[in-house]
Amino acid sequence: MNNILFKGIIAYPITPFDEKGKVNIPLFKKLVDRLVTAGTHGIAPLGSTGVLPYLTDEEKEAVTEATVQQVAGRIPTLVGVSNLTTDKTIYHAQFAEKAGAKAVMIIPMSYWKLTDDEIFAHYDAVAAKISIPIMAYNNPATGGIDMTPALLKRLLQIPNVTMIKESTGDIQRMYHLRNELGDEVAFYNGSNPLALAAFSAGANGWCTAAPNLIPELNIALFDAIQANDLQKAKSVFYKQLDLLRFITAKGLPRTIKAGLHLIGEDGGSLRTPLQPLTDSEMATLAGILSGIR
Amino acid sequence: MNNILFKGIIAYPITPFDEKGKVNIPLFKKLVDRLVTAGTHGIAPLGSTGVLPYLTDEEKEAVTEATVQQVAGRIPTLVGVSNLTTDKTIYHAQFAEKAGAKAVMIIPMSYWKLTDDEIFAHYDAVAAKISIPIMAYNNPATGGIDMTPALLKRLLQIPNVTMIKESTGDIQRMYHLRNELGDEVAFYNGSNPLALAAFSAGANGWCTAAPNLIPELNIALFDAIQANDLQKAKSVFYKQLDLLRFITAKGLPRTIKAGLHLIGEDGGSLRTPLQPLTDSEMATLAGILSGIR
Amino acid sequence: MNNILFKGIIAYPITPFDEKGKVNIPLFKKLVDRLVTAGTHGIAPLGSTGVLPYLTDEEKEAVTEATVQQVAGRIPTLVGVSNLTTDKTIYHAQFAEKAGAKAVMIIPMSYWKLTDDEIFAHYDAVAAKISIPIMAYNNPATGGIDMTPALLKRLLQIPNVTMIKESTGDIQRMYHLRNELGDEVAFYNGSNPLALAAFSAGANGWCTAAPNLIPELNIALFDAIQANDLQKAKSVFYKQLDLLRFITAKGLPRTIKAGLHLIGEDGGSLRTPLQPLTDSEMATLAGILSGIR
Amino acid sequence: MNNILFKGIIAYPITPFDEKGKVNIPLFKKLVDRLVTAGTHGIAPLGSTGVLPYLTDEEKEAVTEATVQQVAGRIPTLVGVSNLTTDKTIYHAQFAEKAGAKAVMIIPMSYWKLTDDEIFAHYDAVAAKISIPIMAYNNPATGGIDMTPALLKRLLQIPNVTMIKESTGDIQRMYHLRNELGDEVAFYNGSNPLALAAFSAGANGWCTAAPNLIPELNIALFDAIQANDLQKAKSVFYKQLDLLRFITAKGLPRTIKAGLHLIGEDGGSLRTPLQPLTDSEMATLAGILSGIR
Repeated sequence: MNNILFKGIIAYPITPFDEKGKVNIPLFKKLVDRLVTAGTHGIAPLGSTGVLPYLTDEEKEAVTEATVQQVAGRIPTLVGVSNLTTDKTIYHAQFAEKAGAKAVMIIPMSYWKLTDDEIFAHYDAVAAKISIPIMAYNNPATGGIDMTPALLKRLLQIPNVTMIKESTGDIQRMYHLRNELGDEVAFYNGSNPLALAAFSAGANGWCTAAPNLIPELNIALFDAIQANDLQKAKSVFYKQLDLLRFITAKGLPRTIKAGLHLIGEDGGSLRTPLQPLTDSEMATLAGILSGIR
Repeated sequence: MNNILFKGIIAYPITPFDEKGKVNIPLFKKLVDRLVTAGTHGIAPLGSTGVLPYLTDEEKEAVTEATVQQVAGRIPTLVGVSNLTTDKTIYHAQFAEKAGAKAVMIIPMSYWKLTDDEIFAHYDAVAAKISIPIMAYNNPATGGIDMTPALLKRLLQIPNVTMIKESTGDIQRMYHLRNELGDEVAFYNGSNPLALAAFSAGANGWCTAAPNLIPELNIALFDAIQANDLQKAKSVFYKQLDLLRFITAKGLPRTIKAGLHLIGEDGGSLRTPLQPLTDSEMATLAGILSGIR
Repeated sequence: MNNILFKGIIAYPITPFDEKGKVNIPLFKKLVDRLVTAGTHGIAPLGSTGVLPYLTDEEKEAVTEATVQQVAGRIPTLVGVSNLTTDKTIYHAQFAEKAGAKAVMIIPMSYWKLTDDEIFAHYDAVAAKISIPIMAYNNPATGGIDMTPALLKRLLQIPNVTMIKESTGDIQRMYHLRNELGDEVAFYNGSNPLALAAFSAGANGWCTAAPNLIPELNIALFDAIQANDLQKAKSVFYKQLDLLRFITAKGLPRTIKAGLHLIGEDGGSLRTPLQPLTDSEMATLAGILSGIR
Repeated sequence: MNNILFKGIIAYPITPFDEKGKVNIPLFKKLVDRLVTAGTHGIAPLGSTGVLPYLTDEEKEAVTEATVQQVAGRIPTLVGVSNLTTDKTIYHAQFAEKAGAKAVMIIPMSYWKLTDDEIFAHYDAVAAKISIPIMAYNNPATGGIDMTPALLKRLLQIPNVTMIKESTGDIQRMYHLRNELGDEVAFYNGSNPLALAAFSAGANGWCTAAPNLIPELNIALFDAIQANDLQKAKSVFYKQLDLLRFITAKGLPRTIKAGLHLIGEDGGSLRTPLQPLTDSEMATLAGILSGIR
């Protein structure tokens, strides 16, 4: 199994809602297409950006199918299938595989803090029921569980757990992972403000919602890294840093939707309890975007 | 609206599953009845102990109805109706009211961190659709959001938000709340190891799963406080402290189920990803229980 | 060795400076005398309140001697002798013993985080060189090291380490200590806003700078606890809580000096880098004090 | 005033003690000379590595003079002059200037948490009394105070505060600083495991004790960055990462002294309460060093 299925800029589309609160699939497809044509290297629907936990089963299925159809094999798709219970996670992982996803992403969502054994058993049970690769995703800020490097290493014993996405925002964690796991394991950065440090540390890719707004800068950072040009990478990174910090601090679905509006694109509505940015936040974002452009 | 609807020991039943992974309603009713006949002062199904987030809508409804039927008005019922989206929270709150619950408990569950305005709007929207009181529940360890005393005070402006449950485990937070909110507001402790400090601080009640195992000690603590006998309260608290610490540290559904087994009661099965206690944890719990009895 | 040498309200005087920046010993003696005549049960110079780490060796010796002289055996004295190096700690502990102190208080001051073995060896070396009891003092917020209950228990193996002062501000830590150490060990609360919870938990005493401003309320809390009257204790505690929170949040030397000025007493000057309260902080403190009186 | 006085590898010597516990100046000079001849770009005595807070005034002065004499202008010297009180900090800063130091480093040491105004006044008072540049040093783990980027920016208003050393270990803090302060301000990394990320972010130098053990690898990292060769930088960084993590985790004075012993150099003794590495820690360090060499 090729474990370097994804590299570069893996773009996370938002899930737009219509005015009645239903998922707007035609608009979603349009947003996905923008990301593909902008030159990103992978598409990841139903992540945190895509408000996965706020969707019904039927909505998740519709979004999965819409992604695969719209991407149409131009770049690989990575579908989020996380759920609080193991059975439901299996259900959605199997659906994604059948629908044509190249891989699935799983964060151990928690209400009760899970033990390491519970987390391992959770991944193991899902992995046994699908044949596509799994990206294990660590993000204590949203999922509520912090998987140690030791646990992530243990998860890699499961044959189709082949990728690690780290979103703690701590570069030392990433260094430690790389040192522990060696060069062969594919690891990905999910913390936007860490993009330069993570690529410098050897990350294979950057999982990010930023390409909804500034794909060319995101791709330019990866290109500079590929060209071993640190000066260029640093320069292009500092250009986008304020935006990366803002969207991370204020929440991806809210800020991306607002940013799309500011650049003249329709991002649809949010699902409550999420609310639009305040006027003051909107002004800050407008200032950041106009500073970039 | 009487805001001191609940006081004393508010007992949280677990939700038992059968071997096929389905909710075992007859066993649930038996567990609820044990809590009522033991002398607790309120029953709160579908809390963290009752693994609310792991249940389907249908299961939540069945548990709600079973509670109201079994309790049969002997003591008041407080039904957990928390959900990630506002619409679903309204749905379950309305169901609970129709089913006969005396009040509902709502924790602002989070995937994305919610702003204070988003949380206020969430409670406000639910409150407008029901006529029974709401207990606002703060527990960053499970819900992922920490509501400040200032925000909790603001929530109390909503007419039927009349009770506060604090589970941060920080007694200073509770002191601050009491000082801010005054004597009239009903506040409840949801941190087991804080039971003595919280009652000493003036908490109206203790929301706890411990009565599944040691109801007489829990009630004795409340009785000593009511009798203004601090020495007695301290003595009875230290007797149960090791158990309170253990069930909090290892997770309520897992430890209560294990404890029920150890005292000869059937607690049913867990739903994955939750797993039974390890042998070593089981031995520790057995030692603590036999030390108490 | 009687390990319950101290109980009740152990008062911490500030160290006042004159306008040239020198310690004002006559004023210090006057401040000490106020605390004794107010009815407190112990005097503890050279604590955090007494800005121990900002003093020269000669100043520490002068303050020690002045305390013993002024108290003149009316109540027991507990002298702070903490130092970064072990040799200097021994030096000051021996000085305090010769000067007539009843006990010494030692916090493991840290620049480099010390290991448990380093901390044990530090206390052990000092204890071997004096014959009066030692109070081991845990306060990560000032000392930079957090001693676990397990380490504190280990320190009690040293014959003349007989008292524990806990200032983490976490009541659960105190419960755990009491459960681990049993009834015989004297433990003291050093977190002002935790006073009610700590006494309810069985603390032998409260180490506090508050008696410089409100001795009657501090003593009334202890009296209510002694009388097993929780309702009274709670009522008297909530009266003083705002002040306790303020002096803890803004720093004891600065706030006590300011408070003394507000109640018409001379508290002398501070030593830089410490600066007087701002006007706005001063107004807040004045409001709190006038609300109490 | 040239604010880029230092760049590259700024080496921190330990302060060795003889068997009677006195500072061993001849050995110190030898250790300093090793660092200069190894090719490091600056020498910084009396830092955390040099156990500044554990030394008497006389010892600090002797170490300062010995450094300037031994370095003899071959590379610039940066002398640590931090003290709890402002007056003592001024005293040592003036001594360092007279002795011939090129700059001084100041961390706002704290027992009581200082306010931003207190910290600003502290630096301002020192700066007014010397004419060499000051490096403001932020390290909450040792100094007990965390200076925000906003405060650091404010300190740069003081004319001879021209350099910032950041040791929080959070690369995002460094990005933020750079974005706030612009390209002209010299900033330095003081967190060893962050060396690659910090240089990638544009840090002017790396303040480190590691050259006592592996100067060639430290210098090679800087050289690769200068050559804009990220691949080489990454490769040379991962070679030394385990050592950087170990010396940071176990404390610089203890680990550097142990490491010197392991490579056949005399590092002298430690001053209590600091103790030598345990046998098990020693074995780990030996394994790491032999893996590198």
